[in-house]
Amino acid sequence: MRTTEVLFEPGRQDIVVTRDFGAPPDVVFAAMTDPALIPRWWGSRRFETTVERMDVRRGGLWRFVARHREPAAGQPPTPYAFWGVYHDVVPGSLIVSTLQFEMGGPGRLQLVTDTFEPAGDGGTRYTNVSLFQSIEDRDGWIPTGMESGIRESHDLLDALIGVTR
Amino acid sequence: MRTTEVLFEPGRQDIVVTRDFGAPPDVVFAAMTDPALIPRWWGSRRFETTVERMDVRRGGLWRFVARHREPAAGQPPTPYAFWGVYHDVVPGSLIVSTLQFEMGGPGRLQLVTDTFEPAGDGGTRYTNVSLFQSIEDRDGWIPTGMESGIRESHDLLDALIGVTR
Repeated sequence: MRTTEVLFEPGRQDIVVTRDFGAPPDVVFAAMTDPALIPRWWGSRRFETTVERMDVRRGGLWRFVARHREPAAGQPPTPYAFWGVYHDVVPGSLIVSTLQFEMGGPGRLQLVTDTFEPAGDGGTRYTNVSLFQSIEDRDGWIPTGMESGIRESHDLLDALIGVTR
Repeated sequence: MRTTEVLFEPGRQDIVVTRDFGAPPDVVFAAMTDPALIPRWWGSRRFETTVERMDVRRGGLWRFVARHREPAAGQPPTPYAFWGVYHDVVPGSLIVSTLQFEMGGPGRLQLVTDTFEPAGDGGTRYTNVSLFQSIEDRDGWIPTGMESGIRESHDLLDALIGVTR
Protein backbone atom coordinates (compact mmCIF):
# COMPACT_ATOMS: atom_id res chain seq x y z
CA MET A 1 0.00 0.00 0.00
CA ARG A 2 1.46 3.33 -1.01
CA THR A 3 1.00 6.24 1.39
CA THR A 4 1.32 9.98 1.20
CA GLU A 5 3.85 11.69 3.48
CA VAL A 6 3.12 15.21 4.70
CA LEU A 7 6.10 17.06 6.19
CA PHE A 8 5.99 20.30 8.19
CA GLU A 9 9.61 21.07 9.04
CA PRO A 10 10.16 23.47 11.98
CA GLY A 11 11.38 26.94 11.00
CA ARG A 12 10.28 26.62 7.38
CA GLN A 13 7.38 28.27 5.56
CA ASP A 14 6.40 25.27 3.46
CA ILE A 15 4.59 21.95 3.53
CA VAL A 16 6.22 19.12 1.59
CA VAL A 17 4.00 16.28 0.39
CA THR A 18 5.46 13.15 -1.23
CA ARG A 19 3.69 10.17 -2.76
CA ASP A 20 4.67 7.26 -4.95
CA PHE A 21 2.28 6.30 -7.74
CA GLY A 22 2.30 3.00 -9.64
CA ALA A 23 2.48 4.51 -13.12
CA PRO A 24 5.17 6.46 -15.01
CA PRO A 25 5.46 10.28 -14.71
CA ASP A 26 3.72 11.09 -18.00
CA VAL A 27 0.66 9.04 -16.95
CA VAL A 28 0.48 10.59 -13.44
CA PHE A 29 1.00 14.07 -14.87
CA ALA A 30 -1.74 13.54 -17.48
CA ALA A 31 -4.19 12.29 -14.84
CA MET A 32 -3.49 15.18 -12.43
CA THR A 33 -3.92 17.81 -15.13
CA ASP A 34 -7.13 16.40 -16.62
CA PRO A 35 -10.01 18.75 -15.70
CA ALA A 36 -12.53 15.93 -16.23
CA LEU A 37 -10.85 13.82 -13.52
CA ILE A 38 -10.42 16.58 -10.88
CA PRO A 39 -13.93 16.14 -9.34
CA ARG A 40 -13.15 12.43 -8.84
CA TRP A 41 -10.11 12.91 -6.57
CA TRP A 42 -9.21 16.54 -5.75
CA GLY A 43 -10.44 17.63 -2.32
CA SER A 44 -11.25 14.07 -1.23
CA ARG A 45 -14.75 12.60 -0.82
CA ARG A 46 -15.70 15.34 1.67
CA PHE A 47 -16.06 17.88 -1.12
CA GLU A 48 -17.82 18.14 -4.42
CA THR A 49 -15.38 20.01 -6.66
CA THR A 50 -16.29 21.98 -9.77
CA VAL A 51 -13.58 22.98 -12.23
CA GLU A 52 -14.47 26.44 -13.50
CA ARG A 53 -11.20 26.90 -15.33
CA MET A 54 -8.01 24.87 -15.77
CA ASP A 55 -5.71 26.02 -18.52
CA VAL A 56 -2.51 24.10 -17.79
CA ARG A 57 0.13 26.23 -19.55
CA ARG A 58 2.43 29.10 -18.59
CA GLY A 59 0.17 32.06 -17.77
CA GLY A 60 -2.96 29.89 -17.80
CA LEU A 61 -5.59 30.40 -15.10
CA TRP A 62 -7.26 27.80 -12.89
CA ARG A 63 -10.23 28.02 -10.54
CA PHE A 64 -11.94 25.26 -8.54
CA VAL A 65 -14.98 25.55 -6.29
CA ALA A 66 -15.40 22.92 -3.56
CA ARG A 67 -18.60 22.34 -1.59
CA HIS A 68 -19.03 20.12 1.50
CA ARG A 69 -20.99 17.02 0.55
CA GLU A 70 -22.49 16.96 4.04
CA PRO A 71 -23.09 20.57 5.13
CA ALA A 72 -24.25 21.41 8.65
CA ALA A 73 -27.97 20.74 9.19
CA GLY A 74 -30.20 23.42 7.70
CA GLN A 75 -27.30 25.27 6.10
CA PRO A 76 -26.54 25.57 2.39
CA PRO A 77 -23.19 24.02 1.44
CA THR A 78 -20.47 26.67 1.83
CA PRO A 79 -18.52 27.01 -1.39
CA TYR A 80 -14.74 27.28 -1.05
CA ALA A 81 -13.07 28.84 -4.08
CA PHE A 82 -9.40 28.30 -4.96
CA TRP A 83 -7.72 29.90 -7.94
CA GLY A 84 -4.33 30.79 -9.34
CA VAL A 85 -2.09 30.92 -12.37
CA TYR A 86 0.44 28.53 -13.84
CA HIS A 87 3.98 29.95 -13.70
CA ASP A 88 5.64 27.03 -15.46
CA VAL A 89 4.51 23.72 -16.93
CA VAL A 90 6.84 20.99 -18.21
CA PRO A 91 4.66 18.02 -19.27
CA GLY A 92 5.46 14.83 -17.36
CA SER A 93 7.90 16.62 -15.07
CA LEU A 94 7.03 19.96 -13.44
CA ILE A 95 4.20 22.34 -12.56
CA VAL A 96 4.81 25.63 -10.72
CA SER A 97 1.64 27.49 -9.90
CA THR A 98 0.07 29.94 -7.48
CA LEU A 99 -2.88 29.10 -5.25
CA GLN A 100 -5.15 31.63 -3.60
CA PHE A 101 -7.88 30.64 -1.16
CA GLU A 102 -10.64 33.15 -1.81
CA MET A 103 -12.06 33.27 1.71
CA GLY A 104 -10.28 34.85 4.68
CA GLY A 105 -8.14 32.75 6.93
CA PRO A 106 -4.62 31.39 7.05
CA GLY A 107 -2.38 30.76 4.10
CA ARG A 108 -4.52 32.53 1.55
CA LEU A 109 -1.67 32.72 -0.97
CA GLN A 110 0.72 29.90 -1.81
CA LEU A 111 3.42 29.14 -4.38
CA VAL A 112 3.10 25.48 -5.30
CA THR A 113 5.77 23.32 -6.97
CA ASP A 114 4.82 19.85 -8.23
CA THR A 115 7.57 17.56 -9.49
CA PHE A 116 7.18 14.14 -11.11
CA GLU A 117 10.26 11.90 -11.12
CA PRO A 118 10.64 8.34 -12.38
CA ALA A 119 10.76 5.81 -9.53
CA GLY A 120 12.65 2.51 -9.70
CA ASP A 121 9.66 0.25 -10.38
CA GLY A 122 8.30 2.12 -13.42
CA GLY A 123 6.33 4.35 -11.07
CA THR A 124 6.50 7.98 -10.08
CA ARG A 125 7.82 9.83 -7.05
CA TYR A 126 5.52 12.85 -6.84
CA THR A 127 6.51 15.82 -4.66
CA ASN A 128 4.30 18.82 -3.88
CA VAL A 129 5.81 21.82 -2.08
CA SER A 130 3.40 24.53 -0.89
CA LEU A 131 5.22 27.71 0.11
CA PHE A 132 3.38 30.09 2.47
CA GLN A 133 3.94 33.77 3.21
CA SER A 134 4.86 33.04 6.85
CA ILE A 135 5.34 30.13 9.26
CA GLU A 136 2.08 31.24 10.97
CA ASP A 137 0.20 31.07 7.65
CA ARG A 138 1.54 27.56 7.12
CA ASP A 139 0.74 26.43 10.66
CA GLY A 140 -2.76 27.87 10.36
CA TRP A 141 -3.38 25.63 7.38
CA ILE A 142 -2.62 22.40 9.25
CA PRO A 143 -5.74 22.11 11.48
CA THR A 144 -8.02 22.47 8.44
CA GLY A 145 -7.88 18.72 7.88
CA MET A 146 -5.66 19.20 4.84
CA GLU A 147 -3.40 16.31 5.83
CA SER A 148 -6.07 13.60 5.84
CA GLY A 149 -7.70 15.27 2.84
CA ILE A 150 -4.50 15.05 0.79
CA ARG A 151 -3.95 11.39 1.72
CA GLU A 152 -7.48 10.47 0.70
CA SER A 153 -7.25 12.52 -2.50
CA HIS A 154 -4.06 10.72 -3.50
CA ASP A 155 -5.62 7.33 -2.74
CA LEU A 156 -8.54 8.23 -5.01
CA LEU A 157 -6.15 9.41 -7.75
CA ASP A 158 -4.06 6.25 -7.43
CA ALA A 159 -7.17 4.12 -7.88
CA LEU A 160 -8.29 6.25 -10.85
CA ILE A 161 -4.91 5.87 -12.55
CA GLY A 162 -5.13 2.11 -12.08
CA VAL A 163 -8.56 2.08 -13.76
CA THR A 164 -7.87 4.49 -16.60
CA ARG A 165 -4.51 3.07 -17.76
CA MET B 1 15.26 62.73 1.05
CA ARG B 2 13.22 59.54 0.86
CA THR B 3 15.09 56.25 1.27
CA THR B 4 14.35 52.62 0.59
CA GLU B 5 14.41 50.20 3.52
CA VAL B 6 15.43 46.58 2.91
CA LEU B 7 14.58 44.14 5.69
CA PHE B 8 15.87 40.57 6.08
CA GLU B 9 14.25 39.26 9.23
CA PRO B 10 15.97 36.23 10.85
CA GLY B 11 14.09 32.96 10.50
CA ARG B 12 11.95 34.16 7.60
CA GLN B 13 12.12 33.28 3.91
CA ASP B 14 11.40 36.75 2.57
CA ILE B 15 12.92 40.14 1.90
CA VAL B 16 10.67 43.12 2.68
CA VAL B 17 11.39 46.38 0.85
CA THR B 18 9.55 49.62 1.72
CA ARG B 19 9.77 53.03 0.10
CA ASP B 20 7.76 56.22 0.23
CA PHE B 21 7.13 58.00 -3.05
CA GLY B 22 5.98 61.60 -3.43
CA ALA B 23 2.98 60.89 -5.64
CA PRO B 24 -0.33 59.09 -5.06
CA PRO B 25 -0.69 55.31 -5.49
CA ASP B 26 -2.28 55.44 -8.95
CA VAL B 27 0.63 57.52 -10.28
CA VAL B 28 3.32 55.28 -8.72
CA PHE B 29 1.50 52.15 -9.90
CA ALA B 30 1.19 53.53 -13.45
CA ALA B 31 4.89 54.44 -13.57
CA MET B 32 6.02 51.05 -12.23
CA THR B 33 3.92 49.12 -14.72
CA ASP B 34 4.85 51.16 -17.80
CA PRO B 35 7.10 49.00 -20.02
CA ALA B 36 8.51 52.13 -21.70
CA LEU B 37 9.83 53.40 -18.35
CA ILE B 38 11.34 50.12 -17.08
CA PRO B 39 14.75 50.60 -18.83
CA ARG B 40 15.07 54.01 -17.12
CA TRP B 41 14.92 52.71 -13.52
CA TRP B 42 14.63 48.91 -13.12
CA GLY B 43 17.97 47.24 -12.34
CA SER B 44 19.68 50.55 -11.57
CA ARG B 45 22.30 52.28 -13.77
CA ARG B 46 24.55 49.20 -13.65
CA PHE B 47 22.32 47.36 -16.11
CA GLU B 48 20.77 48.00 -19.46
CA THR B 49 17.33 46.41 -19.26
CA THR B 50 15.24 45.26 -22.20
CA VAL B 51 11.53 44.52 -21.72
CA GLU B 52 10.73 41.54 -23.92
CA ARG B 53 7.24 41.12 -22.50
CA MET B 54 5.16 42.85 -19.83
CA ASP B 55 1.47 42.06 -19.89
CA VAL B 56 0.29 43.42 -16.52
CA ARG B 57 -2.93 41.45 -15.94
CA ARG B 58 -3.90 38.22 -14.22
CA GLY B 59 -2.16 35.43 -16.16
CA GLY B 60 -0.04 37.87 -18.15
CA LEU B 61 3.62 37.06 -18.73
CA TRP B 62 6.65 39.29 -18.21
CA ARG B 63 10.30 38.89 -19.21
CA PHE B 64 13.18 41.34 -18.78
CA VAL B 65 16.78 40.90 -19.92
CA ALA B 66 19.45 42.90 -18.10
CA ARG B 67 23.03 43.39 -19.33
CA HIS B 68 25.95 44.94 -17.39
CA ARG B 69 26.71 48.36 -18.82
CA GLU B 70 30.39 47.84 -17.98
CA PRO B 71 31.22 44.16 -18.58
CA ALA B 72 34.60 42.70 -17.66
CA ALA B 73 37.35 43.64 -20.14
CA GLY B 74 37.29 41.62 -23.35
CA GLN B 75 34.04 39.86 -22.41
CA PRO B 76 30.63 40.30 -24.00
CA PRO B 77 28.03 41.64 -21.55
CA THR B 78 26.40 38.68 -19.76
CA PRO B 79 22.62 38.81 -20.16
CA TYR B 80 20.55 38.06 -17.06
CA ALA B 81 17.00 37.02 -17.85
CA PHE B 82 14.12 37.34 -15.37
CA TRP B 83 10.57 36.24 -16.12
CA GLY B 84 7.32 35.31 -14.48
CA VAL B 85 3.56 35.60 -14.51
CA TYR B 86 1.10 37.95 -12.87
CA HIS B 87 -1.10 36.16 -10.33
CA ASP B 88 -3.17 39.20 -9.42
CA VAL B 89 -3.29 42.85 -10.47
CA VAL B 90 -5.43 45.52 -8.77
CA PRO B 91 -4.61 48.87 -10.45
CA GLY B 92 -3.25 51.46 -8.02
CA SER B 93 -3.16 48.96 -5.18
CA LEU B 94 -1.69 45.46 -5.62
CA ILE B 95 0.47 43.28 -7.84
CA VAL B 96 1.19 39.63 -7.00
CA SER B 97 3.59 37.98 -9.42
CA THR B 98 6.17 35.26 -9.77
CA LEU B 99 9.83 35.90 -10.60
CA GLN B 100 12.23 33.36 -11.97
CA PHE B 101 15.91 34.07 -12.46
CA GLU B 102 16.84 32.09 -15.55
CA MET B 103 20.45 31.37 -14.66
CA GLY B 104 21.57 29.01 -11.89
CA GLY B 105 22.21 30.37 -8.43
CA PRO B 106 20.30 31.28 -5.32
CA GLY B 107 16.68 32.28 -5.12
CA ARG B 108 15.79 31.29 -8.66
CA LEU B 109 12.05 31.34 -7.95
CA GLN B 110 10.23 33.99 -5.94
CA LEU B 111 6.65 34.99 -5.16
CA VAL B 112 6.50 38.79 -5.16
CA THR B 113 3.79 40.94 -3.56
CA ASP B 114 3.75 44.69 -4.29
CA THR B 115 1.33 46.90 -2.37
CA PHE B 116 0.65 50.59 -2.89
CA GLU B 117 -0.99 52.43 0.03
CA PRO B 118 -1.84 56.13 0.36
CA ALA B 119 0.58 57.96 2.66
CA GLY B 120 -0.34 61.00 4.75
CA ASP B 121 1.20 63.63 2.52
CA GLY B 122 -0.54 62.64 -0.72
CA GLY B 123 2.27 60.21 -1.40
CA THR B 124 2.53 56.43 -1.48
CA ARG B 125 3.91 53.84 0.92
CA TYR B 126 5.17 51.11 -1.41
CA THR B 127 5.95 47.65 -0.02
CA ASN B 128 7.59 44.81 -1.94
CA VAL B 129 7.75 41.34 -0.36
CA SER B 130 9.88 38.73 -2.15
CA LEU B 131 9.22 35.23 -0.84
CA PHE B 132 11.94 32.61 -1.43
CA GLN B 133 11.80 28.81 -1.36
CA SER B 134 14.16 28.65 1.63
CA ILE B 135 16.07 30.90 4.04
CA GLU B 136 19.27 29.79 2.26
CA ASP B 137 17.85 30.89 -1.11
CA ARG B 138 17.00 34.26 0.37
CA ASP B 139 20.38 34.68 2.05
CA GLY B 140 22.15 33.73 -1.18
CA TRP B 141 20.40 36.61 -2.92
CA ILE B 142 21.74 39.27 -0.53
CA PRO B 143 25.44 39.40 -1.59
CA THR B 144 24.42 39.97 -5.24
CA GLY B 145 24.31 43.70 -4.64
CA MET B 146 20.51 43.68 -4.78
CA GLU B 147 20.20 46.02 -1.79
CA SER B 148 22.14 48.94 -3.27
CA GLY B 149 20.61 48.14 -6.67
CA ILE B 150 17.06 48.45 -5.30
CA ARG B 151 17.83 51.74 -3.54
CA GLU B 152 19.28 53.24 -6.70
CA SER B 153 16.41 51.90 -8.83
CA HIS B 154 13.87 53.51 -6.50
CA ASP B 155 15.78 56.80 -6.56
CA LEU B 156 15.68 56.75 -10.36
CA LEU B 157 11.95 55.93 -10.34
CA ASP B 158 11.24 58.69 -7.82
CA ALA B 159 13.03 61.20 -10.06
CA LEU B 160 11.16 59.90 -13.12
CA ILE B 161 7.80 60.26 -11.39
CA GLY B 162 8.72 63.84 -10.48
CA VAL B 163 9.51 64.61 -14.13
CA THR B 164 6.60 62.81 -15.77
CA ARG B 165 3.83 64.13 -13.52
